[in-house]
Amino acid sequence: MAALSAATMLGTAAPAIAAEGMWLPSQAPSIAADLRKEGIQIDPALLANPKAAPLNAIASLGGCSASFVSPEGLVVTNHHCVYGSVQYNSKPGQDYLTDGFLAPSLADEVPGAPGTRIFVIEDLRDVTSAMTRGLTDRMSGLARYERIEANRKALIAECEKQASRRCDVRAYYGGATYFLQQQLEIKDVRLVYAPASAIGNYGGEVDNWQWPRHTGDWGFYRAYVAKDGSSAPYSKDNVPYRPKSFLKIAKQGLNDGDFVMVAGFPGVTYRHRTAEEAKFNFETYFPAFQKFLSDYSDTIVRATAGDRGATIKYASALRSADNYKKNTAGQLAGAEAIGLAGRKAAEEQAYRAWIAADPARQADYGAAAAALDRIVAEANAQELVDLRKSALNRAQLLLAARTAYRWAKEREKPDAGRDAGYQDRDRAQTVERLTQIERRFDPRVDRIILEQALGEYALIPADKRDAAFEAKLKEIGLDRLYADSKLGDTATRLAWLDKPAAAFEASDDPFIRLAVAMWPGDVAARNAARDLEGRDQQARAEYMKGMLAYAESQGRAIAPDANGSLRFTYGKVTGKARDGMSWSPFTTLQGIVEKDTGREPFNAPAKQLAAIKAKDYGSYAAPALGTVPVNYLSTVDTTGGNSGSATLNAQGEFVGLLFDGTIEGVISNWAFDPVITRSIHVDSRYMLWNMEKVDGADRLLTEMGVK
Amino acid sequence: MAALSAATMLGTAAPAIAAEGMWLPSQAPSIAADLRKEGIQIDPALLANPKAAPLNAIASLGGCSASFVSPEGLVVTNHHCVYGSVQYNSKPGQDYLTDGFLAPSLADEVPGAPGTRIFVIEDLRDVTSAMTRGLTDRMSGLARYERIEANRKALIAECEKQASRRCDVRAYYGGATYFLQQQLEIKDVRLVYAPASAIGNYGGEVDNWQWPRHTGDWGFYRAYVAKDGSSAPYSKDNVPYRPKSFLKIAKQGLNDGDFVMVAGFPGVTYRHRTAEEAKFNFETYFPAFQKFLSDYSDTIVRATAGDRGATIKYASALRSADNYKKNTAGQLAGAEAIGLAGRKAAEEQAYRAWIAADPARQADYGAAAAALDRIVAEANAQELVDLRKSALNRAQLLLAARTAYRWAKEREKPDAGRDAGYQDRDRAQTVERLTQIERRFDPRVDRIILEQALGEYALIPADKRDAAFEAKLKEIGLDRLYADSKLGDTATRLAWLDKPAAAFEASDDPFIRLAVAMWPGDVAARNAARDLEGRDQQARAEYMKGMLAYAESQGRAIAPDANGSLRFTYGKVTGKARDGMSWSPFTTLQGIVEKDTGREPFNAPAKQLAAIKAKDYGSYAAPALGTVPVNYLSTVDTTGGNSGSATLNAQGEFVGLLFDGTIEGVISNWAFDPVITRSIHVDSRYMLWNMEKVDGADRLLTEMGVK
Repeated sequence: MAALSAATMLGTAAPAIAAEGMWLPSQAPSIAADLRKEGIQIDPALLANPKAAPLNAIASLGGCSASFVSPEGLVVTNHHCVYGSVQYNSKPGQDYLTDGFLAPSLADEVPGAPGTRIFVIEDLRDVTSAMTRGLTDRMSGLARYERIEANRKALIAECEKQASRRCDVRAYYGGATYFLQQQLEIKDVRLVYAPASAIGNYGGEVDNWQWPRHTGDWGFYRAYVAKDGSSAPYSKDNVPYRPKSFLKIAKQGLNDGDFVMVAGFPGVTYRHRTAEEAKFNFETYFPAFQKFLSDYSDTIVRATAGDRGATIKYASALRSADNYKKNTAGQLAGAEAIGLAGRKAAEEQAYRAWIAADPARQADYGAAAAALDRIVAEANAQELVDLRKSALNRAQLLLAARTAYRWAKEREKPDAGRDAGYQDRDRAQTVERLTQIERRFDPRVDRIILEQALGEYALIPADKRDAAFEAKLKEIGLDRLYADSKLGDTATRLAWLDKPAAAFEASDDPFIRLAVAMWPGDVAARNAARDLEGRDQQARAEYMKGMLAYAESQGRAIAPDANGSLRFTYGKVTGKARDGMSWSPFTTLQGIVEKDTGREPFNAPAKQLAAIKAKDYGSYAAPALGTVPVNYLSTVDTTGGNSGSATLNAQGEFVGLLFDGTIEGVISNWAFDPVITRSIHVDSRYMLWNMEKVDGADRLLTEMGVK
Repeated sequence: MAALSAATMLGTAAPAIAAEGMWLPSQAPSIAADLRKEGIQIDPALLANPKAAPLNAIASLGGCSASFVSPEGLVVTNHHCVYGSVQYNSKPGQDYLTDGFLAPSLADEVPGAPGTRIFVIEDLRDVTSAMTRGLTDRMSGLARYERIEANRKALIAECEKQASRRCDVRAYYGGATYFLQQQLEIKDVRLVYAPASAIGNYGGEVDNWQWPRHTGDWGFYRAYVAKDGSSAPYSKDNVPYRPKSFLKIAKQGLNDGDFVMVAGFPGVTYRHRTAEEAKFNFETYFPAFQKFLSDYSDTIVRATAGDRGATIKYASALRSADNYKKNTAGQLAGAEAIGLAGRKAAEEQAYRAWIAADPARQADYGAAAAALDRIVAEANAQELVDLRKSALNRAQLLLAARTAYRWAKEREKPDAGRDAGYQDRDRAQTVERLTQIERRFDPRVDRIILEQALGEYALIPADKRDAAFEAKLKEIGLDRLYADSKLGDTATRLAWLDKPAAAFEASDDPFIRLAVAMWPGDVAARNAARDLEGRDQQARAEYMKGMLAYAESQGRAIAPDANGSLRFTYGKVTGKARDGMSWSPFTTLQGIVEKDTGREPFNAPAKQLAAIKAKDYGSYAAPALGTVPVNYLSTVDTTGGNSGSATLNAQGEFVGLLFDGTIEGVISNWAFDPVITRSIHVDSRYMLWNMEKVDGADRLLTEMGVK
């Protein structure tokens, strides 16, 4: 039967175009021939250098991707990536979520939500030897973990001696390789322009992950720096940052079949996980996760019903939960549709047969495979426990108390010896996270959420729960927890960040008492997880080295799983045809009219509908379509984190923004199927048309050299 | 904004073809011109007569539609309509669900599940004057209800003096009109042929309500009667029934754009409900219903996991819950997509403005509208209570006990005075329902289901719950409820059906004790519901008379809402195109290969895949496609209950089976949108090809005159 499976055949046969691969810049030379074959016009070698154009125009927002599009630090990304800042600047009576926001001049550009950052890529270099220094085969998992972390911190500390740099070291191929990524951290980020949600989020949850699509998913920030050009916190005296390069807006729009590439920061994929990991994930973890998310979003909806203030405060959390839920459902269906279990088993069997065929390989990789299988079994058992424990962190003041107490405990160590996220370099971001609570917290709603989270917690087997936490919570009671805590006040909350551990231990604030009670359990859980992680790295790095050798023996290059670092991917603009249906590569303005009901989420602004009706296309119509294209499909290989990534044409010019995939393709997190996977982009022509004809953003069009 | 809404405009403008309408046969003359315009080749007047061909070849299975396709009583319907009988005849080691079933000869045809019936349409006549006899404007709602029921029973009793006839009287236009439907009841129904589920349910829940589709959703029963031609229970001496007419299998298959019509028994639609009823349904009831179903299906999955016997027993219940869930989700999304709330409000406003424009109309219809609005508010408040109470009936022995006790109480009245469903005419069906429990009941699973149902029940506000039930259940306890009851034994369970009420009241069987304790609450709830229903009929009938007058003033005919009685509908074979996508009207064999993963639900049998690969199409390829069509789309207006309906071409010949709609179209239960609504049919060529090339059902092909 498997031999007749179309999906399996297509997955293993050479696809029409080499769509799979979130490539490291350093891999560009090894795929240059294919890039040329697919139609790239610039020198592929340019993509190998993150310090030069076009890659140094690419930026990260931490979770989203973005890019510079003017010499004055103008940054374009997705609407859903600036959503938090639009929300933060909105309040009853000044509803930028609904109305959109456009600063008429530089002086009107407003600070983004606290913690908003633009990270400008400056370097990406191999640090494998420094990272694996001091590792031995015999050390415990925990010792191995700690050694790796010490190496990592030393590398980062050295890198961050340069002012305003953020550096990170990430593992590739399960820890077989490490790269250090250096970014300039822009701290003064201002919101410049976001269309109305009825454009930026047109179709809302109904259309999310769907095609055909008509979403105007763009938004603009601007990077500001001190007058001397150095990165600095917000000040009215700051001036626009001048990036080393910026993307040129393409004069010619795309056509069906055109080469496109996307550069950005894809978050995480699991394509190199074992068959057993896939099985556990799809048969056990995801079904539980679905229910976990449903119950959470049901709780938010119920608790905020009829309260516009609370609804705005929890909009972001709800949106995130709904998005995960839809994605997870899509992955579950996708696993069925592509026969993931069979595919993973077959691939793994082939690799392990290759290992077994040679005693030397068996000694190295075979032993690693056996060790990895044991570690996976252990990790799977812990997954559901961790999921349910994580529900407690939805109670924002409890999370704040735990965060502050952990800072106090970590501060007892020298800076270099502290856990990642609790070093001096991390303090400013923590302050902003703790500050942001004031716009996202409602005590009545928070309590309902905590009550529901305690229901999740109760599902954990008794011997895996934290008796000290349970006893303390019972002693305090939910009424006093919320009535007596002062952590709802921002100044009070922030003050805790600088207090010593003893102050916490002496405090009678109920959330602080709870956090203190949870500490021993947290430490134990953390150490157990680290020991597992250390052992995992040891086995998995070796297992992946074997897989790379196996691929090399077949003449294949393998891109590492996504890990949030800079990658590029390339493909073609193309629709999709399957028996009984076809998708056009482009949607058009007419589709907006077709979908519009006048009610959210299909309530385009009257001005936009009038411009469409008047066929007032300006210079933005696509000749082949006779109208303005709105969104388009491509075969590029992307995932969460790529949101907001610039899409570039064969000349390396800006032709749109990646903003979504289709639901059939989300299974590509685990296995990429070129036949069914499509990415969805907003066409630059729709963005520019809307800026000119609907939102009157001429100032920005001029700045980008469009008008 | 509303003026620019495409969906709204399309909904009110004359559609390209008159797709809306589940027409009563008696309406055929009023739409004959349109039928001719759309392409019908037979005399439209034939459709006005349910006693002649083609309509007298149409049959009901009670919940599904079907039709005779041979002079020997062979009946074709959907696979999912014979599913219960396939399941009933399956057991571990003889798994017809997986393998399919084909009787090599008449003697091998096996009885369907207990209660399986074929109802042959014999008459459908207007009985409005007899049904409204004795109604006055001043009577209470309960008195009105009882009078209507007495009239109904008298009509049915008169009709059922003819042996083996089942007669029903249904309300049309909210009770403005009543028709009596007379059917011959065939009691000996045998399973003849059902393909493997991997054909009959190909795509399973993943593809349910989706296009493109590749489901072989057919199955065959045969009607048997006594040698003298009269209807009789199963006997090996029975002979095939000879129907008055049967459908001829078309020699020519369909092409894109061809006229098609569907005759069957659509279950229920709500298109004439008020705007407030729609608002309550979509904003309150459906979201609650979704959660209600999810929790139920989660419970079944959890309780039957790892137990193949229990899994088979509860497969039907699970399938039903999942189907409702998907349908409800589709209706919720569809309501957003077509802007249902705005559309209903606009339509209602126009009608009520017409009423208000004339004092005479205002006196009649205006008063009815006001009364109806008050009744709707009252009914909405009761809906969620009734939903949650209904969960208790999932406990099969509790439902059996309540059913038997109600029979005992009803039997205290003369037959004609009993409630519908509890007259002598209904006893045989009750016996079969109570018998069937033996194949669908597992005490361990049932208890888990009851525990979950009690959780639902606990959500009812205390003053709406039944204190007597709660006290009795607490007294008995769940352990004794299951340990001490003898109702799990079929003979014991059936014996209760003949015992007097006093025997129940003296019984110590715990389920019987619970049923007795629930009786007073049940009676009170029933009387309250009947009072409401009586008042509803009074107001709604008048309101609908006004709506018919309003439509007539505009030269429009209005089909009544579906109510399970015989209707026909017509339209065209056609795909669908929207901005960015298009659906072909036909899918093909190649799509099966494209989807196949080798794993359920995409695991076509090896023999079928081999025949496709060999292009062994026999005489069944469509010239325009060069291959065998599998499923097709049409604009015909259908809903649940239409499943299994024959699809007829312009000559009235059999060209396939209606089996599903697309998820975007399920909102047509509340408002029909011709642009987005499509029905899905299995093409007769795929069915015949599969019967010949895969399943070897040559006996049946010969009988149908195909070979």
